[in-house]
Amino acid sequence: MFTTSDQFLKTLEDLPLASLAHYQAADERQKKLTKPLGALGRLEALSLFFASWQGASPLSLDKVEGLLFAGNHGIVEEGVTPFPASVTKQMVANFEAGGAAINAMTRLFGHRLRVIPLELERPTMNFTKGAALSEDELLSAMNSGAQAVEESDADLIYFGEMGIGNTTSAAALCAAVFGGVGKDWAGPGTGLSSAGVANKAAVIDRAMVFHKGFERTSFEIMRLFGGRELAAIMGGVVAARLKRVPVMLDGFVATAAAAPLILAGRETLDHCLAAHCSAEPGHQRLLDNLWLEPLLSLGMRLGEGTGAALAVSLCQAAIATYNDMATFESAAVDDIEPVN
Amino acid sequence: MFTTSDQFLKTLEDLPLASLAHYQAADERQKKLTKPLGALGRLEALSLFFASWQGASPLSLDKVEGLLFAGNHGIVEEGVTPFPASVTKQMVANFEAGGAAINAMTRLFGHRLRVIPLELERPTMNFTKGAALSEDELLSAMNSGAQAVEESDADLIYFGEMGIGNTTSAAALCAAVFGGVGKDWAGPGTGLSSAGVANKAAVIDRAMVFHKGFERTSFEIMRLFGGRELAAIMGGVVAARLKRVPVMLDGFVATAAAAPLILAGRETLDHCLAAHCSAEPGHQRLLDNLWLEPLLSLGMRLGEGTGAALAVSLCQAAIATYNDMATFESAAVDDIEPVN
Repeated sequence: MFTTSDQFLKTLEDLPLASLAHYQAADERQKKLTKPLGALGRLEALSLFFASWQGASPLSLDKVEGLLFAGNHGIVEEGVTPFPASVTKQMVANFEAGGAAINAMTRLFGHRLRVIPLELERPTMNFTKGAALSEDELLSAMNSGAQAVEESDADLIYFGEMGIGNTTSAAALCAAVFGGVGKDWAGPGTGLSSAGVANKAAVIDRAMVFHKGFERTSFEIMRLFGGRELAAIMGGVVAARLKRVPVMLDGFVATAAAAPLILAGRETLDHCLAAHCSAEPGHQRLLDNLWLEPLLSLGMRLGEGTGAALAVSLCQAAIATYNDMATFESAAVDDIEPVN
Repeated sequence: MFTTSDQFLKTLEDLPLASLAHYQAADERQKKLTKPLGALGRLEALSLFFASWQGASPLSLDKVEGLLFAGNHGIVEEGVTPFPASVTKQMVANFEAGGAAINAMTRLFGHRLRVIPLELERPTMNFTKGAALSEDELLSAMNSGAQAVEESDADLIYFGEMGIGNTTSAAALCAAVFGGVGKDWAGPGTGLSSAGVANKAAVIDRAMVFHKGFERTSFEIMRLFGGRELAAIMGGVVAARLKRVPVMLDGFVATAAAAPLILAGRETLDHCLAAHCSAEPGHQRLLDNLWLEPLLSLGMRLGEGTGAALAVSLCQAAIATYNDMATFESAAVDDIEPVN
C-alpha cells in the first residue's frame, strides 16, 4: 500500500535487484545448448532476464496475467480525441463480455485477464487548468494497481489500459519527464487528423506552461498530468518489482505510465520489457529514452495490453528453449569454440 | 509430383490465386470490429491474407506443421563453415530425440513437426566444380518436399532446414537469382570469422564464374547451387501453393530456397509470409528483393524453422481477433468515421 508521496518515493530508492548469479548461471547454460552460441538472438537474452528475476532454474512462464485498467479524462474537453468519452464505459462492458481484441488474445494464449474500471463517472480534471488528480485520488488509483499485482500469482504481468483521451495524458507525462514540446509526443492516437494532432500538441504545451516549475518526481508528474488507469499502472509496475515479477510493458500509453519512475533512476524499470513499438509516433522516442528495445514492431496502436499479450509468446519460447533443449554433451553433438 | 524441369516450370505459370472476394469481405469485417480501424496494424493485414487464401470465414489456424529437411553439402570442402559436416546427422538425431530448439518450440506451441533427412551420406557436389545436383537428384529432393506438403492437413506450413554449409548454398542461390557478388550475400552463418566470411564470398564468386551463362530458371539455379534440403523447400512451397495453403518462410536459408521461384513472376510467392529477419546480413536484402516484410526481427540465426514457429503465434492472434471480436453494433460501442 502506498500511503503518501514521500513513502512512495522512498520505496523507489530501495527496490530489489536482479540476481547476477542466476544471470551468469543462465549464460553458462546457454553456451551448452545444441545451437551455435547466440543463434537464438534476443530469446537468449530473454532467458537471462527471466533467470535473473526469478532467481531459479528451470524457469517458469506458465502463469501470465493481464491487468486492464480503465479511466476517464477531463482533457477530452479540449477536443483531443474523435471518440466520445462514453466509449470508455462501453469498451469496459465489451471487455467484460469478452468481445474485445484483448479478450480474443487472452483466450487464445491462455492468459488470465482482469478488467478493473476506475471511477469512470469521475473523470480527471482537465490538466490544462489544474492537477489531473488530487493526492488522495492518485494514491487510490496507484493502490488499485498495486493491489491487483499483489493478488496475482503470475510469473509475468502486463498492463492494459482503456481511456478515451489517454494518449494526450501519456504524451503530457512524456513531456514532463523527458522534456521536449507537445509535438514531440503527440500523435494521432485512435485516429486524429493532422489538425487534431496539432491541437493535441498545443494542449500539451499549454499544460506545461500552466504547471511550470512542477516538482519532477514520478508521483507529482502523475498527479498533475496522469489519469487513474495510468496511475494504476505506475503503482502496479512498482508492486511487481517489489515481488520481483517481470512486467511486459504494452504500447505508448502503458509505457508512458511507467516512464515517470525512471526519475528515481534508470534501474527502476530493469524488471520491465517493452513488448512492441506502436504506430504512435512518440513511442519509439519514449522507448529510446527508457533504454528499452521493443520485441515487436507491427504497427499496432490499440492498447488494452494487446501488444504485450502477443510478446509473451516470444518469452515463453525463450524459456521453453532454455529449459528443454539438449546440451552438446547430452545429445552427442560436436561443438566448436565460438569465434570473437 | 514433379517429373521434369519443363513440367515444373510449366506448373509455375498456372498457379492458383488468392480470392479477392474473400480479401474484400475480410476487409469489410475489420471495419466493424470494436477497435479503431487499423489499430491492430499488421494483424489486420494478416487476417486479410489468410482470408484470401482460405477462401472462408471464420478463418482456421489450429493445425500448423513444421517440415524440417536436412541435407549435406560438398561445398564444405571449401572451408566455408566452422562446424564439421558430421553435425548435420547428429542434429537430425537431436531433432528426432526432441532436444533441439525447434522441438522445444513446437511442443510449446502445439505444432506438428516432421523431420526428413535427405540422403545425408550423399552430400551435393562442390558447386565451385560442377552442378550441386543432377536433374534426377533435384527432382527427387523437390518431390520429398512436395510429398510432405501433400500429406499434411495443416492450415499453415513452415519449412525448417539443417545442413552444415547450407548458408553458402543459400548465398549462391541469392547471387544467381538477384545478381550481386559473393560479399553481398555471404555472412557468418553459424559463426564464421570475418576472414571466413571473406573466403565464403570468394567461393561464391568462383562458383558464379564456373557456371557463367547458366539458364536463369528456378530449376536450373537450384540444380547448380542448391542442396537437397533447399530443393525440398522449393518443391514444398510450390506444393503448398497448389493446395492454397499459406507458407511461413523461416530465415535466410529457407527464404533463399524459395527465392528462385520468383523468376517465374513476383506473384509466385504471394502465399508466403516472411517470419523474421535474421542476423545473417544478406537476409534483409533477400527479403527486400522478394518484397517481403518480416514479422519479427530478433537477431535469430538458427534455422530449423525456429523463426517461423515463433511468428505463427502472431498469425493465430490475427485470426483469433478477426474471428472472435465483437462488432461495434453487437457490443453497442459508438463508432466514428475514420479520418484520412
